[in-house]
Amino acid sequence: MQKITFEEMKATIKKAFLNAGLSESQAEICAHIHTESTSDGVYSHGVNRVARFVDYVNKGWVDINAKPSLVKSLGALEVYDGNQGIGITNALYALDKAIELAKKHAVGIIGLRNTTHWMRGGTYGWKAVEKGFAAMCWTNTESCMPAWGAKNTRLGNNPFVMAVPSSDGSIVVDMAMSQYAYGKLQVTRLKGEKLPFPGGYDKDGKLTDDPGSIEESMRILPTGYWKGSSMAIVLDAMAALLSMGNPTNEIDKIQKGSCTGASQIFMVFDPSQLGGKEFNEQMVNSITQYVNTSTPAEGQKAVFYPGELSKKTRKDHLTNGIPVDTEVWREVVSLAN
Amino acid sequence: MQKITFEEMKATIKKAFLNAGLSESQAEICAHIHTESTSDGVYSHGVNRVARFVDYVNKGWVDINAKPSLVKSLGALEVYDGNQGIGITNALYALDKAIELAKKHAVGIIGLRNTTHWMRGGTYGWKAVEKGFAAMCWTNTESCMPAWGAKNTRLGNNPFVMAVPSSDGSIVVDMAMSQYAYGKLQVTRLKGEKLPFPGGYDKDGKLTDDPGSIEESMRILPTGYWKGSSMAIVLDAMAALLSMGNPTNEIDKIQKGSCTGASQIFMVFDPSQLGGKEFNEQMVNSITQYVNTSTPAEGQKAVFYPGELSKKTRKDHLTNGIPVDTEVWREVVSLAN
Repeated sequence: MQKITFEEMKATIKKAFLNAGLSESQAEICAHIHTESTSDGVYSHGVNRVARFVDYVNKGWVDINAKPSLVKSLGALEVYDGNQGIGITNALYALDKAIELAKKHAVGIIGLRNTTHWMRGGTYGWKAVEKGFAAMCWTNTESCMPAWGAKNTRLGNNPFVMAVPSSDGSIVVDMAMSQYAYGKLQVTRLKGEKLPFPGGYDKDGKLTDDPGSIEESMRILPTGYWKGSSMAIVLDAMAALLSMGNPTNEIDKIQKGSCTGASQIFMVFDPSQLGGKEFNEQMVNSITQYVNTSTPAEGQKAVFYPGELSKKTRKDHLTNGIPVDTEVWREVVSLAN
Repeated sequence: MQKITFEEMKATIKKAFLNAGLSESQAEICAHIHTESTSDGVYSHGVNRVARFVDYVNKGWVDINAKPSLVKSLGALEVYDGNQGIGITNALYALDKAIELAKKHAVGIIGLRNTTHWMRGGTYGWKAVEKGFAAMCWTNTESCMPAWGAKNTRLGNNPFVMAVPSSDGSIVVDMAMSQYAYGKLQVTRLKGEKLPFPGGYDKDGKLTDDPGSIEESMRILPTGYWKGSSMAIVLDAMAALLSMGNPTNEIDKIQKGSCTGASQIFMVFDPSQLGGKEFNEQMVNSITQYVNTSTPAEGQKAVFYPGELSKKTRKDHLTNGIPVDTEVWREVVSLAN
């Protein structure tokens, strides 16, 4: 484990991306997003994901020359084809378009089909609230989780993001439909620990908190059992509907790595055209204060609202450096040389 | 337990509602919705809720003379005040308005503030898909669940509904943000049974599957632990934002029963203006078939998609009568006389 400054991490990742053939601006944007995610504590889709992205580019699974193209324009709703371009720049393009539409119509919706992995979903919620907009964004994915009552993986974990802005502290939720990510299973297993709550079924169908048994069976648990399973299914259908794109069962046929061909939705709302900025801030602050002033449960010191901890983590990392696994960092550095 | 036909149940509930002072058309509509929910197996917000609704009307907590009034019109997005009128007719009015807007703009969004309990959330998803539209609807509620890491109830369970239509079988999800409803705890306790999975914390902060201990502590578990807690918080903020209405902490001050003063959102999408009906049906059917043809887990005979079982339940109940708890039915009959 070593500590890297934000600037050094970003510069190194940028060099790795330039080496992979990305343009100056593509490399700049993507390195910034990967570094931001890492500084917020989301390593799995930050620094830990750099090597895999480069691998996808090398294999031609991500087309670095592709740009989004307009498929359909319907007032406040537009559909784009991502043409399997870079997931991050495609998604930021779609979010910007949705914000433009929201400025005009109070709501703006972009369906983005046939794109590639957008990395951390929360990125798009945070970008929206930083500009004073509320957002709901989600993506479907290839199959990685069994439906409730099933053994084999036929559902994506379809991350869902909702964000409501306030200058005193925005509420940002970024949640996948599995109780734990495969990354969490791996990290927990390597530490020789158990999960805090059951995270899936072993190969014999027993609910277990042993991460290795779940990695082996691939029977990860939907969040809230049948509820996360149902929500994954309907998010998939709604993503494909609104983007005129692929559902999970079609993504499974593409076989160009995680999320290649995925369907993504970006809904943006403009608070200034609704109750106004003052109403909105007061409302959001009343919610976050209500949560923060809850009575902590046994063994808890404080109660947090969603988004609060990743801001604290970022602040700490910007001040003290971002701790990175030595092996992961060595690989990124080697890609940068 | 006795079995009642759909027609008899509806006629009896309608008389109870007429006795409470509802108009002919209000009583007709509300009795139909309560009976439909019951015939789909959702007793808690169907026949079991009739007496409480009548009680609210008698107390003046639901204003049967109020009608929704337009607050703001922004193209594809409109905001209405429900004026604490009847929750069901307010919500159906909002849904119809959202469908009208969707016909015109491909998307239609209604924020409905200051309304009352809409009963079963799934009603509005089913009504949308029956007309060929997709929908996302949710409501906030008064506090009934602690935030993750807290002891006291400061979050609504904020039911969330998503629905995507297909004539071969629509996908409809209706989920509250608690793992179990209080109704489920009560029913399970009365049977002397345990919950299938832990459903909350007892008064000492131990996770438990004993329904009585959770009813006593009121520490019901958010679905997926921290995830359901986060989603409840952000759904609350987004509902208040889009309806210019009350968040949960304001609803808590109203003290006129469950959901009086709540904020609701109705988003409707028109598949015929996106990929078209044929694309949409093929896409939805590919998803439901992928789920249905999963390998069942140990002890399971089949794997279902969301919405499939409530259709099966309705079919059975329409053919064989709707079983109703004798005490519950006696109370409804007494209100009808």
